[in-house]
Amino acid sequence: MAKVKKQPRPKAVTPKGFRDYFGAEVTQRKAMLDQISDVYQLYGFEALESSAVETVEALGKFLPDVDRPNEGVFAWQEDEDADWLALRYDLTAPLARVYAQFRNDLPTPYRRYAMGPVWRNEKPGPGRFRQFYQCDADTVGASSVAADAEICAMLSDTLEAVGIPRGDYIVRVNNRKVLNGVMEVAGVLDPSDPAKFMDERGIVLRAIDKLDRLGTDGVRALLGAGREDGSGDFTKGAGLSDEQAEIVMGFMQAKRDSGGATVTRLNELVIGSDTGVAGVQELETIAELMAAQGYNSDRIEIDPSVVRGLGYYTGPVYEAELTFEINDEKGRPRQFGSVAGGGRYDDLVKRFTGQEVPATGVSIGVDRLLAALHAKGRMNKETVGPVIVTVMDRARMAHYQSIVSELRNAGIRAEVYLGNPKNFGNQLKYADKRHSPIAIIEGSDEAERGVVQVKDLVLGAEIAKTATLEEWKGQPAQSEVARADLVATIKKMLN
Amino acid sequence: MAKVKKQPRPKAVTPKGFRDYFGAEVTQRKAMLDQISDVYQLYGFEALESSAVETVEALGKFLPDVDRPNEGVFAWQEDEDADWLALRYDLTAPLARVYAQFRNDLPTPYRRYAMGPVWRNEKPGPGRFRQFYQCDADTVGASSVAADAEICAMLSDTLEAVGIPRGDYIVRVNNRKVLNGVMEVAGVLDPSDPAKFMDERGIVLRAIDKLDRLGTDGVRALLGAGREDGSGDFTKGAGLSDEQAEIVMGFMQAKRDSGGATVTRLNELVIGSDTGVAGVQELETIAELMAAQGYNSDRIEIDPSVVRGLGYYTGPVYEAELTFEINDEKGRPRQFGSVAGGGRYDDLVKRFTGQEVPATGVSIGVDRLLAALHAKGRMNKETVGPVIVTVMDRARMAHYQSIVSELRNAGIRAEVYLGNPKNFGNQLKYADKRHSPIAIIEGSDEAERGVVQVKDLVLGAEIAKTATLEEWKGQPAQSEVARADLVATIKKMLN
Repeated sequence: MAKVKKQPRPKAVTPKGFRDYFGAEVTQRKAMLDQISDVYQLYGFEALESSAVETVEALGKFLPDVDRPNEGVFAWQEDEDADWLALRYDLTAPLARVYAQFRNDLPTPYRRYAMGPVWRNEKPGPGRFRQFYQCDADTVGASSVAADAEICAMLSDTLEAVGIPRGDYIVRVNNRKVLNGVMEVAGVLDPSDPAKFMDERGIVLRAIDKLDRLGTDGVRALLGAGREDGSGDFTKGAGLSDEQAEIVMGFMQAKRDSGGATVTRLNELVIGSDTGVAGVQELETIAELMAAQGYNSDRIEIDPSVVRGLGYYTGPVYEAELTFEINDEKGRPRQFGSVAGGGRYDDLVKRFTGQEVPATGVSIGVDRLLAALHAKGRMNKETVGPVIVTVMDRARMAHYQSIVSELRNAGIRAEVYLGNPKNFGNQLKYADKRHSPIAIIEGSDEAERGVVQVKDLVLGAEIAKTATLEEWKGQPAQSEVARADLVATIKKMLN
Repeated sequence: MAKVKKQPRPKAVTPKGFRDYFGAEVTQRKAMLDQISDVYQLYGFEALESSAVETVEALGKFLPDVDRPNEGVFAWQEDEDADWLALRYDLTAPLARVYAQFRNDLPTPYRRYAMGPVWRNEKPGPGRFRQFYQCDADTVGASSVAADAEICAMLSDTLEAVGIPRGDYIVRVNNRKVLNGVMEVAGVLDPSDPAKFMDERGIVLRAIDKLDRLGTDGVRALLGAGREDGSGDFTKGAGLSDEQAEIVMGFMQAKRDSGGATVTRLNELVIGSDTGVAGVQELETIAELMAAQGYNSDRIEIDPSVVRGLGYYTGPVYEAELTFEINDEKGRPRQFGSVAGGGRYDDLVKRFTGQEVPATGVSIGVDRLLAALHAKGRMNKETVGPVIVTVMDRARMAHYQSIVSELRNAGIRAEVYLGNPKNFGNQLKYADKRHSPIAIIEGSDEAERGVVQVKDLVLGAEIAKTATLEEWKGQPAQSEVARADLVATIKKMLN
């Protein structure tokens, strides 16, 4: 007799760095994505859902952590002759590919929003996963800074739409051209070696981007020779002279009390650099456009310390920060920090077409925004479950099903308990685990009398928590109603 | 002078077998997913979004096309010691993994719905992509066929919710146990060689599943020695004797005019097989439960020709078919066919835990359903675009932005034209490409007089199509309104 081969049992585990999302985690994120896309649509942006899979060639090497340009994506090759394919690591690189591919059919400017998971092959950490959601809006083909200003306004509207009240966030704007100008003035730009300049600029950008974490001393060290962290690891610096580093630090700290004063200070810093002067001019225009629409410094401000780590930005950069404090894992208060950011990137499409195509856009970190709302207690952990019709008599299953049919037809979320009905306690435990508001009980006795028992599980839990036995008896969480009045009764209880 | 290395330009192409979805394609699918999840939630199902990436070990080899069990997924290995990872090919295998992993925390039964893309590493063809959407609902941990019946009822409700009217679809139900019983009676089951039986049964299942495409002669050939197709390719058959094949064919054609008559016929076919008798009994119970809730044969029927190709089904199987005809690419009328299917699979969780866990569920092919609604003309190709504020005077950009702000605050989708405003014709072409209903024009002359020009683009297009020049003059699609009346006017025009 031939034997069926026995295989070892597979392990039931989510792959390392990935996670599963249950119930309210899914529906709350979906609700937030809906709120965001409503605002994006109101602003005239159009949906795009590009393939999750791209050729490695099309994706390019634009991951935020440019220290390791060859890593960061999940990639595979079907066979030796085939293209390398990879999961997208953001929604911007696919947009550049889509625009280059379909530019003759798409409207110009092309204003699109996209939302969905992206994947990063990075070392997972606490709260840091290899698959997470992004929610982007970009305008491709518009060189006017009015496009950047609009996205800042939209970012502000979006945060308020998802439940972050004015005053609890700030959209901060800066311009890469100003930094380039400052570096030109500082003599960091060596016209004879543009590649070296790009490298140094990259290190400078990433150093400034770490201001929050490392403080001014840490950034100062990274602008110069380098910095040793607590564990003894050494990070090579940009190699700027003391004088050069001072100028860059001065730029980073150029923020003043008002937008006007900040602009004045920046204009001083870029004297002699055409690029720098143009950058400050763009910031002024953005500020004017914002003010004309009523977006004042309580919502949007110019802040030279915002640089965004990504190397590909070429003009305005912007970031939304939540300004309230939350308690971290150890109970210490800290600023919640950045939840969205973006900027102008005029060269991404050029990679494909050879022609420069101006583009600007924002990416919202939906999972971080959800975490913020939870941390502020503005979102419930659980949502209300279905009404449960318990099974007292297996032979009456068709009847129980007709009860839930009636409830569903009235728009009430309901189900019959479909597990093994023998142990009634298990049925109530199930209702509890599902956060059911109400259980309906109908045995043969009730059926004969044309009634059902209705158990208010919310009230029941409340009484169980707080009431004495005497009170318990006086406040029955269970009542008998006529079968014909069932739907109306449940409706009333749920309201 | 060091040179920046020049790299060849990457190709801007969607990877082979993948595609991008634009505008209405995205929003219409999203609307359908929302309609479906509303019904799933009404039935008490809870959302789950599992990781898109699974270990190859956890996924197992359950792809529909079991002829090539080692293919079908996109898989990669990070390094030689790491687990092989893969993109999920459906939503059922991940559910089995999730349930096995979290069974102690999850309610039992666990009723979950899931929607999202799945990926198949298969040869792409016309309308056949390597990434597509599924939308599933499953009940894990319920052995009662009431769970199967409920999913059939829900499937019927779902189809009506997305816009398939009653009469245009049918949910067909069968039971694998009946087929197993018939094969036992036919003597195909050789108790001394269960592995051989499973192989043969697999070939039989796939043969019956091809009835639509191959007709009875084709299926008959596949039950016997095998079948040569038009191109000369030979498919090996199940090797059944003529007598055995006749019995299986008899089963497949056992459908009668009424459910009762079909059950009677099936009972005759399974005489002598306990499994078969149990299977027919389950079908009867499902029919009773359906009838009690008012789901009659115009919505749900017993049909022994439904077997579903997947090897892992163990009991009831069901399928939703659209019964209307559409025209194919060559203009020939054909049945639209299956848009959803599922069944009971009691062994999938057991792979992980060693314990049998009963489960049943359905998967809806959302992209096929959308195609059906488009084919029937029940869905528009395009959605209405935003109101466009044109740019007549670049210096007035802040003012134009304040106009769209006002419109958006009134809930009207609107944007300022952000491309190069020099050529006014381009602005109107843009509005046309965006399917904008209205363009707003305000030059310095209008601004001085406190008015704006409002151009009805829908009416304009209509007139341009049908009117003579005389009529054109008499029906101006453009009118002047006071700036203060703008929002009210636009609102009225859109209604």
